[in-house]
Amino acid sequence: MIADTPEPPYYAVIFTSVRTDLDATEYGDMAERMVELAHRQPGFLGVESAREALGITVSYWRDEASIKAWKQQAEHLEAQRLGRERWYADYRLRVAKVERDYGL
Amino acid sequence: MIADTPEPPYYAVIFTSVRTDLDATEYGDMAERMVELAHRQPGFLGVESAREALGITVSYWRDEASIKAWKQQAEHLEAQRLGRERWYADYRLRVAKVERDYGL
Repeated sequence: MIADTPEPPYYAVIFTSVRTDLDATEYGDMAERMVELAHRQPGFLGVESAREALGITVSYWRDEASIKAWKQQAEHLEAQRLGRERWYADYRLRVAKVERDYGL
Repeated sequence: MIADTPEPPYYAVIFTSVRTDLDATEYGDMAERMVELAHRQPGFLGVESAREALGITVSYWRDEASIKAWKQQAEHLEAQRLGRERWYADYRLRVAKVERDYGL
């Protein structure tokens, strides 16, 4: 689903990744759990996700403080550790300020 | 492939879309052609793409002027028209300034 974000400005966290072939089920469960938890974080505005050879998840946030709080969330810290150690062959995370947007 | 972008700041265009079921081959050919053309545009830094139910394409650009020039490129204007009229059931385009990034 396309995220129903408010009028800019707001923030986007663009997370691009290549998976290892480890732990497909555990990874899927954790990814689902992270989306569920993100929805409960203050300042969360929405998330969009797709994966082929490359996985792209874009989450949207009210401000930088919301992004920092999510980065420090306890279960999320554990997911980040597993991501670095086991699940991702490579990734890049970019924090960007959305200045304008338009749709169909 | 994860785009090999330079040190921030630079710009990201986050294009999220839901396809109609029209013109699968024509659409695929045009999408490929647009990536090829984008690579030749001044200020183009890279592109990342994945599609499941949702399609996400993030293209990276040196500055706003590069994004504006790409938006006005002749073949791209025609692709945008076909996109609005035939290929996309819905889309959202967000222009964002990447402020920081990190990787594995």
